[in-house]
Amino acid sequence: MLLVTYSINGGPRRVGSQRDNEIVETTAESMPDALHSGLTETGVTHPLSEVTLHAPLRPGKIVGIGLNYTEHVAESARTLDTDKELPQRPVLFGKPATAVVGPDEPIQHDGNLTQQLDWECELAVVIGRTARRVRAEDALSYVFGYSIMNDISARDQRRSGQWFFSKGQDSYAPFGPAIRTADEIPDPHDLDLSLRVNGEVKQKSNTRYMLFRVPELIADISSGMTLEPGDVISTGSPAGVGASFTPQQFLRPGDVVEASIQNIGTLRNPVVDAR
Amino acid sequence: MLLVTYSINGGPRRVGSQRDNEIVETTAESMPDALHSGLTETGVTHPLSEVTLHAPLRPGKIVGIGLNYTEHVAESARTLDTDKELPQRPVLFGKPATAVVGPDEPIQHDGNLTQQLDWECELAVVIGRTARRVRAEDALSYVFGYSIMNDISARDQRRSGQWFFSKGQDSYAPFGPAIRTADEIPDPHDLDLSLRVNGEVKQKSNTRYMLFRVPELIADISSGMTLEPGDVISTGSPAGVGASFTPQQFLRPGDVVEASIQNIGTLRNPVVDAR
Repeated sequence: MLLVTYSINGGPRRVGSQRDNEIVETTAESMPDALHSGLTETGVTHPLSEVTLHAPLRPGKIVGIGLNYTEHVAESARTLDTDKELPQRPVLFGKPATAVVGPDEPIQHDGNLTQQLDWECELAVVIGRTARRVRAEDALSYVFGYSIMNDISARDQRRSGQWFFSKGQDSYAPFGPAIRTADEIPDPHDLDLSLRVNGEVKQKSNTRYMLFRVPELIADISSGMTLEPGDVISTGSPAGVGASFTPQQFLRPGDVVEASIQNIGTLRNPVVDAR
Repeated sequence: MLLVTYSINGGPRRVGSQRDNEIVETTAESMPDALHSGLTETGVTHPLSEVTLHAPLRPGKIVGIGLNYTEHVAESARTLDTDKELPQRPVLFGKPATAVVGPDEPIQHDGNLTQQLDWECELAVVIGRTARRVRAEDALSYVFGYSIMNDISARDQRRSGQWFFSKGQDSYAPFGPAIRTADEIPDPHDLDLSLRVNGEVKQKSNTRYMLFRVPELIADISSGMTLEPGDVISTGSPAGVGASFTPQQFLRPGDVVEASIQNIGTLRNPVVDAR
């Protein structure tokens, strides 16, 4: 199923199943409810055009992965002072749940804080059950589904090398528009992903080029850090971030960013002036 | 008040007010309930020796502050490859809520992951109401109270300089034993803090030596990142971490760590073998 969190005319949020241009109501009261108890479709449908989509859920934690595509490691070393060598172990960082926004919600550009607002289209893994010291060969059974996260960064807000404030500000984690349940993505490493700014393609790759793949990531993280239902792993960005262009390109108020992943959808967010 | 989250004989967790060696029951069902609706004491008391104390609450997010005491900046530059210069802006990093343990709960030493498990005694600021773009002069009114966090680090698990996995593993955020409400700490920058390992003093300082003080931290964080009720800012460690000793000293199974802050209490945690 392709699950969404939606509301109608400002009413309560519900979980629906998207089929083409329709949303089918389900028995789940919320996405955490769906994670814990499963869900079935009811017969009731709504035209997609009549609902508002929201971020699929509020993650307990978001574990970001840095430097997880070879060409992005190279471009980051060139422009962002990171290591030239491929990382030997996954590079983990945190983003807080307060950074999450849903589809079509604005990315806040605060010119007092940044002149280097950048994009990163990433496959988001939504954890379905508690994972602690999971082996890579068992790891995919802990995945509820897959979505998209745009790992927005204010490149000029790194602090002593730490990425938390540069990647953790409000609206810096656009998430959605939907979760494709894991049963419908048998191989998460065969998905095209791309990102466009104002219609122009900036990133274009495939999840097969990840350095550390989803099973290894879950095994590595859960070796020390319990993953809980609703936690999200944002698996890293391919090449083509704004900082890598010559001259560098950064997001400005008025821009529209669209992050797309095959079999999941397109996550669209406008950039607004938030001074 | 000195607020604790406690249970009796494995029963439900409740919020109590500690007076000397007694816990007074309150009207709050939970610490989030206390944050939102306040609380009053009922007449019922329990001897402290008959209750189990837990972490005061599960934070929505934990914002850690690095390199926030002058002498710790110096010792870190010497032993942990950080900058020699004092930071110009607060150095922020994240710790997930899954890292939290309460008083007397074990700190997990996994010899497969680390041989450099280290301590950091820190003043923890518990946020009481939603803070977004708060001015430093107004910031203390957003504080619910103060507690202690031991910012445990596996120094050998930094990944491309990021601290999230080194500081974010399960049990790496001992928190408690209590929250002293803000009305009883008029000046959070006049508190002695110290840390002992197996009874031996390793850290001894006063919160007056913080580089960026609580009002500035709240103003800086909330300039980009909304702070919500129950969020915690762990304000950084003074000098005397294990990595700074010659030879270096790290935690081993069997050790007992006690972090104390004046007017709040002592947070005691044993280190256990968790392989």
